[in-house]
Amino acid sequence: MKRLSCNLMVSVLVVCTPVHAVDSERLLARAERYFDPLPEIMQGAENDSAERIELGKQLFFDKRLSINDSQACVTCHRLEQGYAGVDNLAVSPGAKGKAGSRNSPTVLNAGLQASLFWDGRADNLVEQAKGPILNDIEMAMPDEKSVENKLRDIKEYRDKFAQIYPAEAQPITFQNVVEMIAAFERTLLTKSRFDDFLQGDLSALSEIEKRGLETFIKIDCVYCHDGVLLGGQALEQLGAENAYDNQADQGVYELTKDEADKMVFKVSPLRNVSLTSPYFHDGKIEKLDQAVKLMGKLQLDEDLTEQQVVEITAFLNSLTDKTRE
Amino acid sequence: MKRLSCNLMVSVLVVCTPVHAVDSERLLARAERYFDPLPEIMQGAENDSAERIELGKQLFFDKRLSINDSQACVTCHRLEQGYAGVDNLAVSPGAKGKAGSRNSPTVLNAGLQASLFWDGRADNLVEQAKGPILNDIEMAMPDEKSVENKLRDIKEYRDKFAQIYPAEAQPITFQNVVEMIAAFERTLLTKSRFDDFLQGDLSALSEIEKRGLETFIKIDCVYCHDGVLLGGQALEQLGAENAYDNQADQGVYELTKDEADKMVFKVSPLRNVSLTSPYFHDGKIEKLDQAVKLMGKLQLDEDLTEQQVVEITAFLNSLTDKTRE
Repeated sequence: MKRLSCNLMVSVLVVCTPVHAVDSERLLARAERYFDPLPEIMQGAENDSAERIELGKQLFFDKRLSINDSQACVTCHRLEQGYAGVDNLAVSPGAKGKAGSRNSPTVLNAGLQASLFWDGRADNLVEQAKGPILNDIEMAMPDEKSVENKLRDIKEYRDKFAQIYPAEAQPITFQNVVEMIAAFERTLLTKSRFDDFLQGDLSALSEIEKRGLETFIKIDCVYCHDGVLLGGQALEQLGAENAYDNQADQGVYELTKDEADKMVFKVSPLRNVSLTSPYFHDGKIEKLDQAVKLMGKLQLDEDLTEQQVVEITAFLNSLTDKTRE
Repeated sequence: MKRLSCNLMVSVLVVCTPVHAVDSERLLARAERYFDPLPEIMQGAENDSAERIELGKQLFFDKRLSINDSQACVTCHRLEQGYAGVDNLAVSPGAKGKAGSRNSPTVLNAGLQASLFWDGRADNLVEQAKGPILNDIEMAMPDEKSVENKLRDIKEYRDKFAQIYPAEAQPITFQNVVEMIAAFERTLLTKSRFDDFLQGDLSALSEIEKRGLETFIKIDCVYCHDGVLLGGQALEQLGAENAYDNQADQGVYELTKDEADKMVFKVSPLRNVSLTSPYFHDGKIEKLDQAVKLMGKLQLDEDLTEQQVVEITAFLNSLTDKTRE
């Protein structure tokens, strides 16, 4: 796939590279071809009442959803000041102390993705929420029934579910529990300065961020990282151009055993990526600039210059929730 | 708008630039964001009967539409073997021997544009067709009435117009004449290999053409040259970054006398551009590669390498009508 064209240059060079100011209008026109601003409301949230969202939030924070009352959803998907829907660990310890094998992705804006989990095996937030509760190395509840029984013993939940599902004789079902959690998660939309830019505020990005955006488009990071989340819509092979060092987890292949699925993972959405270190499915890449440089090489066979890495990393910083910047 | 970053490099360098094969699928995905393949039928052509088209063609080729029976539409917009809807002259002599001041644009695919003429002053083919017939330095008919009277004296036209407009007592009107010409022009759609590429045939472009397309997108020629015609949709300032040498014709400004319209011209559509030399509104640029190099500098402040110019020029060649390649 490669050929080398070599020139021997013996010379004394004064290299003066003209550095043009970015033409912001042109850049915006270009960006609009690839990206969409955050919607005002997440699809599916139209019928989420305040009661449902509140109950979902309570469940999201409730450690009793784990086998030994040690872990809630929020344990790994942290939302307190300073966190962006992740725990910033490479992999997260579960209720029984054993660590998972994949990095916890952020819950922020998660419902805007086409699929969830690193291998895209859940179609939506509701299906996703079922996973960790029942996963033996996460919250480790043995089965749906156990979850239902445990919550049915709690008067507060009996009252709240009854209020939301007045027509149902037994409203505390596993399905209804995850429906509430999903309703809460649908509120987790985070507007960024990049949205302001996409909506016409040319001053919302700094010059270096604009340069980064320009390069991000030019070198075709946007082939995968496009749309409203700059990712999250497709499954792609990690190491399409150059193989990734860690081949222990083969991604979608682990599910399908189809050769074509080897090292195929969901394209990570990039909103709030500055706050969600470490990176990659295995959490082995600590710094964002490392991740940028590596992705350039693995996916595009581009040897990004230090300057390009700095600029792209700056651009990615503009995707951060304005309330968390 | 520029700053210089200078580094003194004293060294012996062996520069080995890896030249990657173009990833055709990625390139197609990217191209699809900017371009559309040629439609099967031109908008407005749905009701063009064979009779209308045939009559329009006859009128398009009829020199009696000029004051001294010396010029037809086709005189400047040549369609015979070896021509692509232009006469390949810098500017065209009119019926009275005087030359116009702007280069004749091609009629091929012309109706797909948002507007016509170099200053975009006609909204559609019908309005455009009225112009040259009555323009004193083109076909130079004195007024609409003269055109009507001249054609009404010709039995063949009386019969044909009567057949197409049976309900009209006097079907030979100036409006009906240009309606017929437009009907003929709506048939002038030219499919190219680039359309095959856009429709998924990755082998339709050669490697060098693909490189040219890649660069054409990367350096943002597509800011103006996009859509189905790679242009023809907007008015833009010629010399947005660096002024064009010839400032005699100020484009839209000549009509509006608005400062903001100085040097604003319609963005040229690029289909068949390999066959429509010379270039620019004044026809002063003889070769396509010169035009490419110059546009890079004038519009984008890019100093294209010879290699880039060759590749982009090769790509533009893929926009040529397959029957004319």
